[in-house]
Amino acid sequence: MAEAPRDSQRHRPLVCNFSSQSEQAAGNRGLDFSVAAVLPAGGSGERMGMATPKQFCQLLQRPLISVTLETFERVHWIKEIVVVVSKQNFELMNSIIDCYGHSKTTVVEGARTRHQSIFNGLKAFVENRPGRAWLEKPEVVIIHDAVRPFVEEDILFSVATAAKEYGAAGAIRPLVSTVVATNPEGYLDHSLERAKYRASEMPQAFTFDVIYRAYQQCTDYDFEYGTECLHLALQYCGTSAKLIDGPSDLWKVTYKRDLHAAEAIIKESLSKSVCIITGIQEEQIQLGFLLQEALQLVMKVDVLKWSLSKESHCLQAISSGLYYNFIYITVNNFDLPQEIVQLVESIGIVKLSALYPVVVTVVHLNNSETASSCIRMEDFTNSQQLAKEANRKNVLVYRLLINYTQMALRLLGMHTNP
Amino acid sequence: MAEAPRDSQRHRPLVCNFSSQSEQAAGNRGLDFSVAAVLPAGGSGERMGMATPKQFCQLLQRPLISVTLETFERVHWIKEIVVVVSKQNFELMNSIIDCYGHSKTTVVEGARTRHQSIFNGLKAFVENRPGRAWLEKPEVVIIHDAVRPFVEEDILFSVATAAKEYGAAGAIRPLVSTVVATNPEGYLDHSLERAKYRASEMPQAFTFDVIYRAYQQCTDYDFEYGTECLHLALQYCGTSAKLIDGPSDLWKVTYKRDLHAAEAIIKESLSKSVCIITGIQEEQIQLGFLLQEALQLVMKVDVLKWSLSKESHCLQAISSGLYYNFIYITVNNFDLPQEIVQLVESIGIVKLSALYPVVVTVVHLNNSETASSCIRMEDFTNSQQLAKEANRKNVLVYRLLINYTQMALRLLGMHTNP
Repeated sequence: MAEAPRDSQRHRPLVCNFSSQSEQAAGNRGLDFSVAAVLPAGGSGERMGMATPKQFCQLLQRPLISVTLETFERVHWIKEIVVVVSKQNFELMNSIIDCYGHSKTTVVEGARTRHQSIFNGLKAFVENRPGRAWLEKPEVVIIHDAVRPFVEEDILFSVATAAKEYGAAGAIRPLVSTVVATNPEGYLDHSLERAKYRASEMPQAFTFDVIYRAYQQCTDYDFEYGTECLHLALQYCGTSAKLIDGPSDLWKVTYKRDLHAAEAIIKESLSKSVCIITGIQEEQIQLGFLLQEALQLVMKVDVLKWSLSKESHCLQAISSGLYYNFIYITVNNFDLPQEIVQLVESIGIVKLSALYPVVVTVVHLNNSETASSCIRMEDFTNSQQLAKEANRKNVLVYRLLINYTQMALRLLGMHTNP
Repeated sequence: MAEAPRDSQRHRPLVCNFSSQSEQAAGNRGLDFSVAAVLPAGGSGERMGMATPKQFCQLLQRPLISVTLETFERVHWIKEIVVVVSKQNFELMNSIIDCYGHSKTTVVEGARTRHQSIFNGLKAFVENRPGRAWLEKPEVVIIHDAVRPFVEEDILFSVATAAKEYGAAGAIRPLVSTVVATNPEGYLDHSLERAKYRASEMPQAFTFDVIYRAYQQCTDYDFEYGTECLHLALQYCGTSAKLIDGPSDLWKVTYKRDLHAAEAIIKESLSKSVCIITGIQEEQIQLGFLLQEALQLVMKVDVLKWSLSKESHCLQAISSGLYYNFIYITVNNFDLPQEIVQLVESIGIVKLSALYPVVVTVVHLNNSETASSCIRMEDFTNSQQLAKEANRKNVLVYRLLINYTQMALRLLGMHTNP
């Protein structure tokens, strides 16, 4: 097995704010036992009907597995993460870790079945090899699917602490469909009473010794056909897992439609905040605050005057990772503002767009009431050039022309000041 | 119960081509027994965490339930459709039927539980009431969730014919998650062996007498807590349902993310064909065919010269419902073409955009090599006005300016003629 490139230069891991509540709670969480995570990611993606295994499919220009890893990386009490991939995806996985700066993650080569792969992941903690980062055997290990990207710290904390207490724990969800048993001829044998059963989801957690001993005793049949780690812990160690109700976001990306759903969830999250940047004109600033008033009912909005000085709030806002949307307003000026060139440059420097695309919208307001204004073709060309270069850095630049009259502006004022 | 407004003026039901294979097969399908459908749609949408029940949520500006109904309306051997909604949504449902022209559908008032609502739907076939369309008791009745929009004719045909033969039939899918039984203290009791169980999905079908007799014998407990029609048929009529493997598209819109996934599926379907419309200039026509060559690897493309005459292929293409995307190309002309005004008008007249949004893209090619050209502000204003009016009719008008040189065009030519 090759070494995960832990030391090479990486993108700074800036994160969008999926779960601020969890984050606040995390600050108070100290665990008096060590926790690591194993993420099996060896799937071939057959059910997707796609050439690329689903864990490597793109979610807003970023591999799905990197979205999942990012969540684990952010949880300070998870000390090590092992991701298990098939031999042919080993180098790809290392390059993803490198590109997105997953500094706690080590790649381990998987085997033919899911259970063998998880076992390989666990072995990495007891059979340290030269050429790979040193992994210390944890007291509790969390096992989670790479293709469940929206796991939150709360549920990770719940399964980890329950595993420490009871030996094993797993997230469950209510059944969406009734489960039926079929007879060999393909007819209904009986339906299960839905209320008595649950869907077993991920994450699951175990004391390391319980799950490791269970795997050591597994038969070939278990490795081939066994579906559940919880079942193995019960069968081979007599450990009955504590089952914990998980949130609906734990769902597994199984079909192509799930990728669309996951993208929509991320987009919704990214669109929860916007930074309005103004130039120095009084009119720009006034309009910025008007827009803030109108938007702040539905999202977090800040208004900042553009500046490149070192103490500038603008640069702080860009590098904070809180904003993936920037709006610049200009009045009766149809040229590409120089501030936008600088803004795009700054976004590139702090690598804000490494994780998710950043959207920069330039709003050109036209209130000249005459139809004599003219947009120069040269400006279009400059604008296109900038957009093309920005796009390479995962920054999407849009320009919007809005014609408005004083009447329309008064209406806007009335609307925002009821 | 009020009468479903079957006779009022309706939008012509034009359908996007989701399943051309099924459609071809359908032509050959004659059933020698009568089939009707009952769609329970009384859910409150609690799991979505949304104010609107999910069956009334919008999918590309159209209520989800109307997408499902459209599939049933298109199947010629399904003679009647009964949709069961709660009292407070009765008028809303009738207005949807009216707006989208679901001419086979009758609305029936539901009751407190899902099973009582389905029973109400069945009763409508035996207890005809004055003031409502006359419904004839069918031999076979299909029961399907309103919130599973992507059901195809193939699976409807399979469950209907199997129900006729065996008394009951239902679609099943492999389990996505392992199913576990919990003990009263919240610990794992046992895991089910995944291979022996299936998720019971919809559609299901029954001979009318089997399911009606089953409901007549139901206890209050069954009406309150029973989950499965298949189970009731087995319990009260001794009818063991034939279980049929269904496609993955049968999934139920349960969470908000499922709405996003459903939208993505429809969008993918809508983007499978495009109609390129050209003016009379030779250059426009040549570019149209070049674009066709480049696009036809990934989608169905037709090129038509714009004309408003009665025999015009353009008008036929618009009213065929095969195209939801129109592209108009113009060279070195930055004014809004008159053809676009006429196109948007024609789309409105045949009500193509009643079901799904129609996208009209005007491509302005600029190859003048000098930066002296100018786009007049007046043209922007006209264009905005048209776009605003079109938007009200669910037609989205975009204008695209592409600067290209002869060099770039040669490259395009090389690419499309390898």
